[in-house]
Amino acid sequence: MDGSVAALEDRCCHRAAALHLGKVEGNGLRCMYHGMKFDGDGRCVDIPGQTTIPKAARVISFPVVELDNWIWVWMGDPELANPDMIPRGISPRDPNWNMITGSLTFKCDYRLIMDNLLDFSHVTYVHRKTFGGSNAYAETLPDITISDRSIHIERWVYNEPTPVFTWDAFGGPDVRIDMHYDYTLHLPCTFLMRFRHFTAGNVTDGPSNGQLVLDTWTSQGVTPVSEDKAQYYFSWGASSETDSPGIAPLLERGVKAAFREDRETIEAQHINIQRDPERAFVATGHDQAAMRMRRILDKALEFENSKSADAA
Amino acid sequence: MDGSVAALEDRCCHRAAALHLGKVEGNGLRCMYHGMKFDGDGRCVDIPGQTTIPKAARVISFPVVELDNWIWVWMGDPELANPDMIPRGISPRDPNWNMITGSLTFKCDYRLIMDNLLDFSHVTYVHRKTFGGSNAYAETLPDITISDRSIHIERWVYNEPTPVFTWDAFGGPDVRIDMHYDYTLHLPCTFLMRFRHFTAGNVTDGPSNGQLVLDTWTSQGVTPVSEDKAQYYFSWGASSETDSPGIAPLLERGVKAAFREDRETIEAQHINIQRDPERAFVATGHDQAAMRMRRILDKALEFENSKSADAA
Amino acid sequence: MDGSVAALEDRCCHRAAALHLGKVEGNGLRCMYHGMKFDGDGRCVDIPGQTTIPKAARVISFPVVELDNWIWVWMGDPELANPDMIPRGISPRDPNWNMITGSLTFKCDYRLIMDNLLDFSHVTYVHRKTFGGSNAYAETLPDITISDRSIHIERWVYNEPTPVFTWDAFGGPDVRIDMHYDYTLHLPCTFLMRFRHFTAGNVTDGPSNGQLVLDTWTSQGVTPVSEDKAQYYFSWGASSETDSPGIAPLLERGVKAAFREDRETIEAQHINIQRDPERAFVATGHDQAAMRMRRILDKALEFENSKSADAA
Repeated sequence: MDGSVAALEDRCCHRAAALHLGKVEGNGLRCMYHGMKFDGDGRCVDIPGQTTIPKAARVISFPVVELDNWIWVWMGDPELANPDMIPRGISPRDPNWNMITGSLTFKCDYRLIMDNLLDFSHVTYVHRKTFGGSNAYAETLPDITISDRSIHIERWVYNEPTPVFTWDAFGGPDVRIDMHYDYTLHLPCTFLMRFRHFTAGNVTDGPSNGQLVLDTWTSQGVTPVSEDKAQYYFSWGASSETDSPGIAPLLERGVKAAFREDRETIEAQHINIQRDPERAFVATGHDQAAMRMRRILDKALEFENSKSADAA
Repeated sequence: MDGSVAALEDRCCHRAAALHLGKVEGNGLRCMYHGMKFDGDGRCVDIPGQTTIPKAARVISFPVVELDNWIWVWMGDPELANPDMIPRGISPRDPNWNMITGSLTFKCDYRLIMDNLLDFSHVTYVHRKTFGGSNAYAETLPDITISDRSIHIERWVYNEPTPVFTWDAFGGPDVRIDMHYDYTLHLPCTFLMRFRHFTAGNVTDGPSNGQLVLDTWTSQGVTPVSEDKAQYYFSWGASSETDSPGIAPLLERGVKAAFREDRETIEAQHINIQRDPERAFVATGHDQAAMRMRRILDKALEFENSKSADAA
Repeated sequence: MDGSVAALEDRCCHRAAALHLGKVEGNGLRCMYHGMKFDGDGRCVDIPGQTTIPKAARVISFPVVELDNWIWVWMGDPELANPDMIPRGISPRDPNWNMITGSLTFKCDYRLIMDNLLDFSHVTYVHRKTFGGSNAYAETLPDITISDRSIHIERWVYNEPTPVFTWDAFGGPDVRIDMHYDYTLHLPCTFLMRFRHFTAGNVTDGPSNGQLVLDTWTSQGVTPVSEDKAQYYFSWGASSETDSPGIAPLLERGVKAAFREDRETIEAQHINIQRDPERAFVATGHDQAAMRMRRILDKALEFENSKSADAA
């Protein structure tokens, strides 16, 4: 057991038993149905009761990297696995940040979560009880930068109350601040955001001239499970420099409530779409980023499928 | 907010969010995902963050009438909506009646509930613990009158115990009464019944010559939800003139138990039918009304489908 | 009510009501929806409210035998029903045995339970907490005898600890015994086993020369419910001659825990297989009995299907 990670398919090659019920033994994993043992590359290294091991006795393994407290599994052509493509977040173990973490299951197509993250006009409506019901999010469009495998979004909100869930720490609904949202959504659905509070300054365009009072970071990873299910992993926290006692529990309660607000909205939307998947939407100006990201995703899927076709 | 009702599809035209999560604002409804607002006709009247509203931005709305505490939604061709077709019940708010109300979900094809309501021979068996196990229901056939969109049924039961659930009020199982069931089942599944108790007289045909001791009314509306689900709404109560203290709670407990008896029977029947929908039934004389009503329903559906075909 | 058993399809011929909600009346069963009554052969003998009974009014009935506390229902061509084919177990009511009984639902193809029962190498891994984690089961192959409709398996395990769940009765993990497993799996999935403990002798082949200290019997019947569900009925117990106070509760707790261990493993395996039913397995020497039994089963099914084809 050298502490490194490995990723094997959850299916023993013998009779399809679930390897997640198996047991780590040294640097290998033993299937706990009839005892076949595999190394990290999926090769069978032991069949109890017999000395020869058939060549076919191997489990599918995937290239894997552990980074920033996340395990990155490459599901595609192993030849193309490239750790440099991994977007870097901030680990919940980073001593410069006080992170809380959590996870929720969303019963929906994960692409609806991508859409959600790319249009913060929903903050006004979905998160009116957590982030606050100001119209500021819905009435302005953010700056959008489009790349090959990601979209970067930046948005200043000026002279607004702090998020509702931080009122206890910042002096209630009358205190005004400037807020800066600065985030990137990477394919397929890795969301990395720096979110900062400044004392309200007097600019209405570009960077606030107020004073930085809270600097937070959130890493969010959405993993598709099926066409109707996604697992949402997230961290969120303040930098040690701007943190103060009492912020962490407010942030924890607040952002977890906000994720549940998103979930209620998106799961109901998913049910509606499933009922009639071909039915058209009516687009608005806020949809731009979501629509561009879909094109980026579709192109990546097309590329991936053509590679599988080559392989077949 | 003028207090009138409107019926919109539960799907925002923007990105299919569920409008039941929306918020009434004045005479309109705001979608609480990205904030589009609609009037009662489904027209979009506000898109936060933009001034032009696309013509396509509208939600499907349905003609709707509020009557007798029920909301009647016309799902078909709006041109044909005709409030005069609505069968009139008695509102639970009617001061001349002391109504209890309730609702149950039945996991079944709603047509099995129609069948159930049109053959009271089941009262003998399904409701032996609530209405009573007398053979009177199974051994006689009721009078049936068939109309274009409804079936009217009348049945006298003479010299029988009162329903089991009213024994406490009427003096136990030995007290005998005459009962009159007088009901209409309207398409698709609106059931309106007057059910009266008379002291046992000495006629065995036609109206009882006993004295009216309890006059009750029930309105029942069964709404298909899917092929496997229906929502059952009901009221039941005594007229103020014949009511007495203690009747209401007995009635409430009794009829709700009876609805659960129906549900257990019909849900099990539904599962059996789903397993092999083509398999034939063996008809008896009691099936007449149910079979006639199916023909009325099929004819109405055929007409409706031909209208849709015209429209397409 | 002469006490004999009968087996009717759970579907009334009238309108498909569930007969398991019916009521036994004398030697017949009355459907409690509209009151049709059937005899043990499925013939309708009463239709309330009418005197003629249509010929078609009958429910499917199956040949049935009660034996050893089990009810054997013949689902195939009634002409071929042959009670002599029934494998004989030991009834939980047999005074010479102190049996415990139980039942579990397995969400799996019942054939995975057949496989499980025919390869005890899984005892080493799946049952390491109940029967014990010795490698003895995985490292040796049992004696296998193949018949037309069953497989017989015998296996000696020498000089091993007693099963973990009996340590309290036998003196802990250091006590050594010889064990004899002697069982037959009959089509489709009836498992009958005698399982005996002897004080550890000094032979390493053939019957132990130790002293018999515990003689147990188990009858297990697995009934397929659907492609994804099976109902598992079992008894297990010690002979009165070798039983002693305290054995029964240990046995009960132990074997029930072992059945749950099997269930966890097999249900996860079933999910994996359902995901891709065509995907190949990699066979080992331990699979021999399971693979032979599949061939016996497939042949029996082929025969049965050809009989249905003849009949059609």
